[in-house]
Amino acid sequence: MAQKASKFLGMLSTEKKNEALHTIADYLDQHTAAILTANEQDLQNGRQAGYDDAYMDRLSLSESRVKEFAQGLRDVAKLEDPAGEIVSDWTLDNGLQVETVRVPLGVIGMIYEARPNVTVDATGLALKSGNAIVLKGGSSAIHSNRTIVRLMKEALENTEVSSDAVQFIDSTDREATEQLFTMKEHIDVLIPRGGGKLISAVVNNATVPVLETGVGNCHIYIDKEADVEKAISIFINAKTDRPAVCNAAETLIIHSEWLAENKEALVSALNEHSITVYGCDRAVNEFPGAEKATEDHWANEFLSLDVAVKIVDEAAEAVEHIDTYGTKHSEAIVTENAQTAAQFTGLVDAAAIYHNASTRFTDGSALGFGAEIGISTQKLHARGPMGLPALTTVKYVMKGNGQVR
Amino acid sequence: MAQKASKFLGMLSTEKKNEALHTIADYLDQHTAAILTANEQDLQNGRQAGYDDAYMDRLSLSESRVKEFAQGLRDVAKLEDPAGEIVSDWTLDNGLQVETVRVPLGVIGMIYEARPNVTVDATGLALKSGNAIVLKGGSSAIHSNRTIVRLMKEALENTEVSSDAVQFIDSTDREATEQLFTMKEHIDVLIPRGGGKLISAVVNNATVPVLETGVGNCHIYIDKEADVEKAISIFINAKTDRPAVCNAAETLIIHSEWLAENKEALVSALNEHSITVYGCDRAVNEFPGAEKATEDHWANEFLSLDVAVKIVDEAAEAVEHIDTYGTKHSEAIVTENAQTAAQFTGLVDAAAIYHNASTRFTDGSALGFGAEIGISTQKLHARGPMGLPALTTVKYVMKGNGQVR
Repeated sequence: MAQKASKFLGMLSTEKKNEALHTIADYLDQHTAAILTANEQDLQNGRQAGYDDAYMDRLSLSESRVKEFAQGLRDVAKLEDPAGEIVSDWTLDNGLQVETVRVPLGVIGMIYEARPNVTVDATGLALKSGNAIVLKGGSSAIHSNRTIVRLMKEALENTEVSSDAVQFIDSTDREATEQLFTMKEHIDVLIPRGGGKLISAVVNNATVPVLETGVGNCHIYIDKEADVEKAISIFINAKTDRPAVCNAAETLIIHSEWLAENKEALVSALNEHSITVYGCDRAVNEFPGAEKATEDHWANEFLSLDVAVKIVDEAAEAVEHIDTYGTKHSEAIVTENAQTAAQFTGLVDAAAIYHNASTRFTDGSALGFGAEIGISTQKLHARGPMGLPALTTVKYVMKGNGQVR
Repeated sequence: MAQKASKFLGMLSTEKKNEALHTIADYLDQHTAAILTANEQDLQNGRQAGYDDAYMDRLSLSESRVKEFAQGLRDVAKLEDPAGEIVSDWTLDNGLQVETVRVPLGVIGMIYEARPNVTVDATGLALKSGNAIVLKGGSSAIHSNRTIVRLMKEALENTEVSSDAVQFIDSTDREATEQLFTMKEHIDVLIPRGGGKLISAVVNNATVPVLETGVGNCHIYIDKEADVEKAISIFINAKTDRPAVCNAAETLIIHSEWLAENKEALVSALNEHSITVYGCDRAVNEFPGAEKATEDHWANEFLSLDVAVKIVDEAAEAVEHIDTYGTKHSEAIVTENAQTAAQFTGLVDAAAIYHNASTRFTDGSALGFGAEIGISTQKLHARGPMGLPALTTVKYVMKGNGQVR
């Protein structure tokens, strides 16, 4: 049904799609009470299940949060419509006119966890770019999601977008998710949004193409020739501004010569921000109270005020460490040496490489994209922060008057 | 080893990469005899195994074929280098400079069948775009491929490109191929080149991202309002120009009203070109000697002078048939009605849609791309004929002076 709906949605004008987004936004606003009632049920179940505060916060909706995601739809309506853009056009010697036109991908499968706002955000981005969407949210948010989707579909009844363009997998069954993995004939792309486990389950098991988003095991490398103020403020920002997000720093790599000069300043900044160090053998000796880092510390995100610290004697060692443990998200070097920076930028394989700036800028809104579907850590199709064009492909449209070869 | 080599290759200048391509080309020319000797062994084994003529032709090399693929390398050297291109750049209000730079994918895994020239062609495209390559050719060509790769690696010893940038899986073992499927840490993309079975084995089993190429179950729809001359010449060209290629037509869909007017002309063209018809029930009645088409006929490529024929009463039926059986490669409508054409173009989901022209133009060289890695029938990353840029991704490179969020 989503596939069929996507065909007609793909041919609708930008205006009609925007009207639909506004209609949904207004309808959600009007039915805030129903959404909050459903959410209360999820919260109650969550409390019984003993979820932690951070999880409960992600799960919980309020009048202002509903207003926020309804407004988000109106903001998406304002964005440029990528579908229909003529990407390039030329005419062959024989007169055949060639156009590459940006078109919607078709049907997007969204697999996500606790946050019910993703239900609305993802639907908005999908519809704006002319795609149908199949939503599979986390079990813990099923009452909220079910109600939100019902309301969105009701709203669509009064628009030119078919309500079939939004589909909800109303199941808490793991098998329901796994069925989506292989529906290659009906789903054009799967987008997992959530933790590393969810993402790797999708990547490793899906035959439907996946847009891999999110896990950021990001490193800050403070080079021998790093400016001390820049180095410390960049690291502290990347580590502490929002420790739980994917563009936060997780490992600090420090050149031994820089550390010898600036240890005191760094240690006092770490203390001031209550950062706990897990170090390599050398770092354990240098940092008071540091524990030894485990393989898990090097390889995975802390998403907290903890950091893994490694001391190196040359930039190449930093690059090698990032090669081994990085997740190809965001990596930074702090140095006043342009050549060292260029080597780092060239050799490190990641979506975003920073020279003398915080990794926190790998973000659609920080870069001015308006809305963001996620941050791609894969190399094919889209890399880094993904705006609406990531939900499109191209089509060659050829117009002739009988040309043959 | 390929991965390590790819890092340095990715940073080499276009000039150095071109020098390497010329060095390989000259070296292959000089060692034509060794290549032909090895090929003779494959041919001998092929004759013993009783391969058919078409297969033996694909397997066989000659002095002129060696010259051709060596020259191919020099032609690739002339193409624009996609790596290093600044795709976009802007500066944020805080002064952070943002650039998106085109960079090589890294390591390309090429899995292919009988043609030993793919060994050289794929290596040329990979090296030019700054990628290392892992080659897994068909067992029947192993002697040819082994010798060609040895020569290419010897040639690279005298260049700035590491000979590790070209790796050969010297095995006829199916497990060796399957190991490539999951080497996500070491291979950035797999490109299968060959028949439908090979491609679907890779697509369905690989966790490494795949660039899906090639299978083209292409349709020509002759609309009610089709010009008779255009219709017949387009169909005959698409069916007979090179029946074994992926952009050849496999099914003809005809509007009943057009057929009623133009049956005689069509039948005589079919006869003239010795085309065998497998039809739907109505077509069996209309076309003398036609057999009934099976599900297999509708769903798969003939790659011969056979065609499946379906008669419909409206354009929407044609679109539906293509939806069901098409492989999203190339689809054509012949009509003088611009609105019908626009509907067809909008509703049909394929890499290339033709209005009044032959599907045979879905081809890198016909479209002026220079070299072609293959024709993508997937939607993500690259669609339709893929030139060198399909072997690249982008990297965000951010230059700051201490920016934090």
